[in-house]
Amino acid sequence: MSSQDALVIFTPSGKRGRFALGTPVLTAARQLGVDLDSVCGGRGICSKCQITPSYGDFPKHGVSVESDALTEWNSVEERYKSKRGMAPGRRLGCQAQVMGDVVIDVPPESQVHKQVIRKSATQRDIVMDPATRLLYVEVAEPDMHEPTGDFERLATALDTQWQVKDLTAGLPLMRRLQPALRKGEWKVTVAIHKGNHDASPRILDIFPGFYEGGLYGLAIDLGSTTIAAHLCDLRDGSVLASSGLMNPQIRFGEDLMSRVSYAMMNPGGDVEMTRAVREAINALATSIATEANIDPALIYEVVFVCNPVMHHLLLGIDPVELGQAPFALATSGSMSLDAKELDLTNINTAARVYILPCIAGHVGADAAAVALSEEPNKSKDMVLIVDVGTNAEILLGNETRVLACSSPTGPAFEGAQISSGQRAAPGAIERVEIDPVTKEPRFKVIGSDLWSTDAGFDEATKQTGITGICGSGIIEAVAELRLAGLLDPGGLIGSPDQTGTARCSPEGRTHSYILHDASATGGARIMVTQGDIRAIQLAKSALYAGARLLMDEMGIDHVDRVTLAGAFGAHISPKHAMVLGMIPDVPLDKVTSAGNAAGTGARIALCNIGLRNQIEATVHNIHKVETAIEPRFQEHFVAANAIPHKTDPFPNLNSIVTLPDVSFNAGGAGSEGRRRRR
Amino acid sequence: MSSQDALVIFTPSGKRGRFALGTPVLTAARQLGVDLDSVCGGRGICSKCQITPSYGDFPKHGVSVESDALTEWNSVEERYKSKRGMAPGRRLGCQAQVMGDVVIDVPPESQVHKQVIRKSATQRDIVMDPATRLLYVEVAEPDMHEPTGDFERLATALDTQWQVKDLTAGLPLMRRLQPALRKGEWKVTVAIHKGNHDASPRILDIFPGFYEGGLYGLAIDLGSTTIAAHLCDLRDGSVLASSGLMNPQIRFGEDLMSRVSYAMMNPGGDVEMTRAVREAINALATSIATEANIDPALIYEVVFVCNPVMHHLLLGIDPVELGQAPFALATSGSMSLDAKELDLTNINTAARVYILPCIAGHVGADAAAVALSEEPNKSKDMVLIVDVGTNAEILLGNETRVLACSSPTGPAFEGAQISSGQRAAPGAIERVEIDPVTKEPRFKVIGSDLWSTDAGFDEATKQTGITGICGSGIIEAVAELRLAGLLDPGGLIGSPDQTGTARCSPEGRTHSYILHDASATGGARIMVTQGDIRAIQLAKSALYAGARLLMDEMGIDHVDRVTLAGAFGAHISPKHAMVLGMIPDVPLDKVTSAGNAAGTGARIALCNIGLRNQIEATVHNIHKVETAIEPRFQEHFVAANAIPHKTDPFPNLNSIVTLPDVSFNAGGAGSEGRRRRR
Repeated sequence: MSSQDALVIFTPSGKRGRFALGTPVLTAARQLGVDLDSVCGGRGICSKCQITPSYGDFPKHGVSVESDALTEWNSVEERYKSKRGMAPGRRLGCQAQVMGDVVIDVPPESQVHKQVIRKSATQRDIVMDPATRLLYVEVAEPDMHEPTGDFERLATALDTQWQVKDLTAGLPLMRRLQPALRKGEWKVTVAIHKGNHDASPRILDIFPGFYEGGLYGLAIDLGSTTIAAHLCDLRDGSVLASSGLMNPQIRFGEDLMSRVSYAMMNPGGDVEMTRAVREAINALATSIATEANIDPALIYEVVFVCNPVMHHLLLGIDPVELGQAPFALATSGSMSLDAKELDLTNINTAARVYILPCIAGHVGADAAAVALSEEPNKSKDMVLIVDVGTNAEILLGNETRVLACSSPTGPAFEGAQISSGQRAAPGAIERVEIDPVTKEPRFKVIGSDLWSTDAGFDEATKQTGITGICGSGIIEAVAELRLAGLLDPGGLIGSPDQTGTARCSPEGRTHSYILHDASATGGARIMVTQGDIRAIQLAKSALYAGARLLMDEMGIDHVDRVTLAGAFGAHISPKHAMVLGMIPDVPLDKVTSAGNAAGTGARIALCNIGLRNQIEATVHNIHKVETAIEPRFQEHFVAANAIPHKTDPFPNLNSIVTLPDVSFNAGGAGSEGRRRRR
Repeated sequence: MSSQDALVIFTPSGKRGRFALGTPVLTAARQLGVDLDSVCGGRGICSKCQITPSYGDFPKHGVSVESDALTEWNSVEERYKSKRGMAPGRRLGCQAQVMGDVVIDVPPESQVHKQVIRKSATQRDIVMDPATRLLYVEVAEPDMHEPTGDFERLATALDTQWQVKDLTAGLPLMRRLQPALRKGEWKVTVAIHKGNHDASPRILDIFPGFYEGGLYGLAIDLGSTTIAAHLCDLRDGSVLASSGLMNPQIRFGEDLMSRVSYAMMNPGGDVEMTRAVREAINALATSIATEANIDPALIYEVVFVCNPVMHHLLLGIDPVELGQAPFALATSGSMSLDAKELDLTNINTAARVYILPCIAGHVGADAAAVALSEEPNKSKDMVLIVDVGTNAEILLGNETRVLACSSPTGPAFEGAQISSGQRAAPGAIERVEIDPVTKEPRFKVIGSDLWSTDAGFDEATKQTGITGICGSGIIEAVAELRLAGLLDPGGLIGSPDQTGTARCSPEGRTHSYILHDASATGGARIMVTQGDIRAIQLAKSALYAGARLLMDEMGIDHVDRVTLAGAFGAHISPKHAMVLGMIPDVPLDKVTSAGNAAGTGARIALCNIGLRNQIEATVHNIHKVETAIEPRFQEHFVAANAIPHKTDPFPNLNSIVTLPDVSFNAGGAGSEGRRRRR
């Protein structure tokens, strides 16, 4: 170090060092480990390394920056600015050289590990560290006197210029290598996958010259009922499109165990189901790319989260062992695969797949994704996380210990097995209120913000119609029936006589509540039947029993907070969930929604390869509780059948609502409604 | 160590150590690093660990062995012996326990790294260290309270019982894992591929219980004209069958450059050729398995050696760059692939492929295989190795330095482009002698040991007929014509007048020598035409010029010895090769044949994974000489056109034969024969 060296201070990192005059800012940043992006390796092509020099006195840093602290604009910067434009005050870090003490600000968009700020405050920000990235590289030309392969020279160049070691490539890439190198005149941009764990990096694609086109990934939450995907830009983590479709395996069985049964009863049945789900994922990849107006061949990575049965069926493994004790997974570790191994042929042919690890035979990669997104292992207070779906994943814990189980809620919460049930789509009733005095309902349907009693509602819903009731709608409806005194704690709907409203209409030996009736004008007649109540009771009992089992294992009788996750978790009102007894009693403001936490976990894993290692380690430390063979699960399940519960107190709930003490057992509804709330 | 410990001495290794009484012999061997095989891990199932204890006084070892130095026969050994039989004096190393000082001999068949002794003394022995082996393992059963995947428990068991780390498996294996573990009651045998270089080991197959069936590999020498394969037992290295077929790419061009041209002139032409050669390899795999009466699904590994053009076409890479300077290979490194990536579907679906590295754009993996087999880099004297085929690979060097080049000899040496040429098959003339006085020939055909002048020859060849002349036959015929004074140094066949024999029959403006004429009885008329002589001259000039170019680079004017390799190298007589001027002048006893050295190199790489690393390192140190752009190659080529040579002296040859000083230029043979030997 000479006394001539200039002091360079980077913000916001605060990293500082002395450098010889003439050192490019990018070089200084790299030597100090400052997070400053570059795709072209300092050749003035990519402009990713833009920085903002600050001039004047900086007492805080003990430095004065003269106006000539950096070299003048050079021709490369001028050309870039005239061609692409640059924000005022910006310079290219690879071109501007240090000529005196200087303070350099690295704007967020020039950081490799930039944070993606998401809209909802309840969602976590993701630090970008994607497995797949673009690197521009200049390759030595072949020399017949020192013969080496083009691939070997590319590997050497990537090592020298980007510190990429042990490069690998598949045969299709090898086939395209020579034309690309020659077309680009020995300058190419490669899409490189780092390799999970200790795997070697692999070239997924090669483009002649400098390429700054798209580089995308899919985060897929493969559920029993729905398959939901986010299409993400792997360069900045932004979500270009989110889309979903029904899991076509539903035709083989609505819930997981019926699909396992189908595989057991029908030789080759698992192969059929594997084919069906892979075809659906291909279709989803095509449609989401179309929606975002991108070429699906630019999708280079897919991350999957799913429950163990879907996991096995996706991988082409017969799930039969998951249908019987001891519920042994074929493999529980994370999987790194070629997309083509899963017949995912609609995306880039070299695309890679990462599947999160499973926790146990009943607690899958979706639960691992929820843990990655919600981080119960970093929580100071005791948090209960329920991911509501056809199968519910439940996590309980804090930074000391995390427990997990799954509970077979069935598809009722998703609107299936409900007489007027449908998936959450325009026209579906999603909010319900019942006036406790008049017993009359009002509701909202998806696609309109108006209540059904508001002026203009008919006009607003003319397009969609009122077609059914979705998962969140049925939960609210049942809770409102209970709050309005139309439903007793045992789950019986009262008769018109008992309730004083003709909306409680006899249907055989039971009663149904008429929510909406447009049958006179050719529309739908939407009711909550006694069967619907029973389906919801089964589902919520399973959910509650699972949570209670974890609380027993943890040795606690209440939790500090509850996080509702799952595709429709965001739409459930905490009050209604607690009236129903879906979740343990906590202060209402301690119930939050995490949205589709499994999908978020998938996105996190897609955007940050380092966090894949982290969740794999976390999963190892999660203690799994097996509900299926635990006798107390049955006890908890039976006790949870009542609304909200047969025995457990709900002091927080009772402080805000009064549940009518009704009983309709004597009303001719048969023996089903014998239980009463005490 | 207690004073009670017994001294155990192993022969032939001489390794010795003291062990507590009761230590099984296998355990002692493992601790001392003695090479004692075991597949079942000491469970008395596989019998691979058989040893022979020696009793009595061993002054050399300083030990006396009592009759009770090992425990008595136990029930496991008794059962094994009664079921399978055991040689007298043998014990199972895993069952017999040390009870006193003892000398233990490990017979060759109980060594993992046993040497395969091959029949021919000129061939190297191979030390077995195969990439793929069978391991018997006992796996923990699943426990739903400590849930892990079956695969993870198998990996743990393989680590604990066999020190196999970082296990991987493909999806098809994952699919078969659970049924196999349950059928074998948590005892299975797996076929494991170690992984080349730092790659992780991979399970290729799984068998319930203890499996000791077949485990095979193919070593394939993929030549321009023929594809030759050895089917090897990966347990002991034995060759079960050797087979070959014509390379179907011949229909796209007889030599390499015409195939490159085909790819350049016909869009998709390289894809056609790739498909053709892969189909042929599939057919060859099936036929060789049928020949050896094994299930082709038990072939778990394939090693390929081939020239660069075949290499690229096998991999599905357009070879166009190999047809023009600077002859850049797409990749020069060794390749480790799944067989299915090469569409090799007739063997085990999980089979692995290893392809040796290429040396340069004209010097391929076949030359690397020759270097692996013949080891010029370990030779004390200066050795010239020529691998004769459609393209000749030439290596020159000693332990100080090794040079390599390839030379485009064309297919004449393989009997193609020869008027009566055919491949070496029953009925083909393979040996020729011409009486220098009578000018009458005699010959041998493949399938009979009799000369054509011997009694019984007609009867002996009745079955096959006399159908043509193969590569070694044409070389001998041309050399004998020269020795008999029927052919001049310039390569002209004399007229009947000039030679005094009617066998030199006019054909247009040139003459042909009639070797055999059965046309009167409907048989073949086999001649050596002037065109045949020209084809052989071109081929041998290319071969000699390549060798000379390497000698120039090395700065030498003679070599110490010559090794003839290639499919028919074994059949060429050194004298005839030297009369022809195929190889530089050396003492005849310094010319040896290595047989199909490339194929041998492929077998070595198949049987010993460690030597794969070694040849990859060796290849890096081989200096490549590019014949195609070297002006002196043309000079050498022209000078080598004469038989044996225009200018180079052949003192060793001249000490054993006298070449008639004839010239037939004036005999009306036209301008072609203007060159004369000086």
